[in-house]
Amino acid sequence: MVIYLDNAATTWPKPPEVGEAMLECLNIYGANPGRGGHKMSVQASRVLFEARVNISKLFHIKNPNDISFTLNTTHALNLAIKGFVRPGDHVILTSVEHNSVRRPLEYLKRTQGVAVTYIEGDRQGYVTPKQVDEAIQSNTSLVVVNHSSNLLGTILPVAEIGEICRRRGVKLLVDAAQTAGTIPIHVEDMSIDMLAFPGHKGLLGPTGTGGLYVHPSIDLEPILHGGTGSQSEAIDQPDVRPDRYESGTQNTVGIAGLNAGLKFILNEGVKNIHNKEWMLTQRIMEGLSRIEGVELFGPPIGENKTAIVSFNLQGMDSAEVAYILDQHYDIAVRAGHHCTPLAHETAGTIRYGAVRVSPGYYTTEQEVDALISAVQEIVQHL
Amino acid sequence: MVIYLDNAATTWPKPPEVGEAMLECLNIYGANPGRGGHKMSVQASRVLFEARVNISKLFHIKNPNDISFTLNTTHALNLAIKGFVRPGDHVILTSVEHNSVRRPLEYLKRTQGVAVTYIEGDRQGYVTPKQVDEAIQSNTSLVVVNHSSNLLGTILPVAEIGEICRRRGVKLLVDAAQTAGTIPIHVEDMSIDMLAFPGHKGLLGPTGTGGLYVHPSIDLEPILHGGTGSQSEAIDQPDVRPDRYESGTQNTVGIAGLNAGLKFILNEGVKNIHNKEWMLTQRIMEGLSRIEGVELFGPPIGENKTAIVSFNLQGMDSAEVAYILDQHYDIAVRAGHHCTPLAHETAGTIRYGAVRVSPGYYTTEQEVDALISAVQEIVQHL
Repeated sequence: MVIYLDNAATTWPKPPEVGEAMLECLNIYGANPGRGGHKMSVQASRVLFEARVNISKLFHIKNPNDISFTLNTTHALNLAIKGFVRPGDHVILTSVEHNSVRRPLEYLKRTQGVAVTYIEGDRQGYVTPKQVDEAIQSNTSLVVVNHSSNLLGTILPVAEIGEICRRRGVKLLVDAAQTAGTIPIHVEDMSIDMLAFPGHKGLLGPTGTGGLYVHPSIDLEPILHGGTGSQSEAIDQPDVRPDRYESGTQNTVGIAGLNAGLKFILNEGVKNIHNKEWMLTQRIMEGLSRIEGVELFGPPIGENKTAIVSFNLQGMDSAEVAYILDQHYDIAVRAGHHCTPLAHETAGTIRYGAVRVSPGYYTTEQEVDALISAVQEIVQHL
Repeated sequence: MVIYLDNAATTWPKPPEVGEAMLECLNIYGANPGRGGHKMSVQASRVLFEARVNISKLFHIKNPNDISFTLNTTHALNLAIKGFVRPGDHVILTSVEHNSVRRPLEYLKRTQGVAVTYIEGDRQGYVTPKQVDEAIQSNTSLVVVNHSSNLLGTILPVAEIGEICRRRGVKLLVDAAQTAGTIPIHVEDMSIDMLAFPGHKGLLGPTGTGGLYVHPSIDLEPILHGGTGSQSEAIDQPDVRPDRYESGTQNTVGIAGLNAGLKFILNEGVKNIHNKEWMLTQRIMEGLSRIEGVELFGPPIGENKTAIVSFNLQGMDSAEVAYILDQHYDIAVRAGHHCTPLAHETAGTIRYGAVRVSPGYYTTEQEVDALISAVQEIVQHL
């Protein structure tokens, strides 16, 4: 039986209700929502709306129609960035952002004369609100920060950054790839103008789902123009949300699964989920820290963080460690650069990458202990 | 039991293997492909590759990596159009194109000075190769045609149009939303440079899947920039396919289902599927044509077409007809403008829209006859 510790890439297993909801949608009412008025189509529309309502509950969003579904977080971040930023704008991001933030911004820099400033995090990837305040220029339109780094697990002070952005008249886009469903998010209290999130990680839904919340005061240029089932006769994309940002047939089957994941989370409680994952994370860190030659990255033991432990074994390439864990111990972790090269410069792990261990809500203490023993054995055989 | 005749929006039911393959992926090996080297991740990568190979078999594509997966056909068309067309270009489309072609092009016209010419189809939405030839200008870079209209079922002479495009040095993008899996497509023989297709219609996969084939000689600017799991350290999107056009976590669960749909189709044979659907379509047309007050649109009885029958009842709004069929007879059809307003101008149905009946491979003669009887009853009660 595999020990799956790669939940930061996608969570596994999912609650059984997720697959059941998907099969129900596929086999019982799998019609195209919004594109016909018949009963099956109406039922398909309903599951999309229900998922929007549940996301709204989770993130304290007033109007569920301010949420648009996307293929994944990358799609959501591209929509937010390319739909919002205009030529001549200045945009701020951090050195621990994912390539899904960095690459769209570098593209705009290269092709549309957008100016970009990277705020350098400390070795844990932490960025202070003061750094953001100081980086804001007269033409700054947007600040993009991840809520938590996918390499280090460091939680950024989003609410404080949001307060500064609001005061300075700059919009804040938050990448919640690593926190949606595992760390409380409140778009109003945290002054978040746009929130990009995956459906298949902390929200426990299937791949092929994600979304973007856009504050009603912001109008984005859509990145996908096309059929919406509404205002078919208009030559332009309709203004009405969520249709404006949801062109073409949506992933109804996937969203039915996501909706089941959302119900599971609302029922368990985000804080309980975080507490359980945090305990497991601490246990991993404590176990690994007792092994000679292990170097841990990110926040130290005892501090708040997401369920990510990145480490290296002295002199070993991270890919080799991950390979041995997989082949000899059936433990699934991830190695390499995790689509976030600057974070590795920040953490000092650019040469070997890092082994990333990410437990999930279903991970057991036995599994965590098996990982620690395995690393111990690998070190002994060095 | 519902009689589902809305297969042109999405096919239903799917072969049982589709849901089974999705559940297997979700519950057994549902990791993130390409983003970790562990065994589950490798298995997830494999199903993506297998689906690419099966799509290649179906459309006679040489290199499976020239296929990129997308959220839906709209996403694929936006990638093709926005990734290819440059300011100052001239683009040709037809009057029966879907909003997913028209709106991206109208957006480029409005914002980037792209010139657009609509070729007017005849009342059946048919466009001749000669019309395409005559519309080509010195700055024409792209011709976009659907393989078959989603309103009328008319099949356009793609191979002949392709020949002209190749001869004139213009690229051809084909929207196969209504034909992928039901009408033979051969990208080489038909001189198709780019092919956009849905996963959830004729290919019998779930929603949330679609794709774009791009000839190796064409380089598109991606519309989604981000993490690809490859070349993490590069600031730009990698050049390698399919990664270049597939940013972020792909819909592995959906594509596992699509792969099962593809295997079903390759086993049954596209020609057999088309023949069965064509017979059903003829039966509907013959039945409806005997009812007084029914006006049929599109190609006449006996001609080749896709499995779409559009009609109106004299003096009745199409939405009302569809509503009665749904509420009183449990027959699911679609009414309205089907995201293709210009096609309605072409067909002369702009006022009332049209009732669209679209049988699928699982539709029975009994179901078709029930529809005919229902329309007959509605007419008698007028």
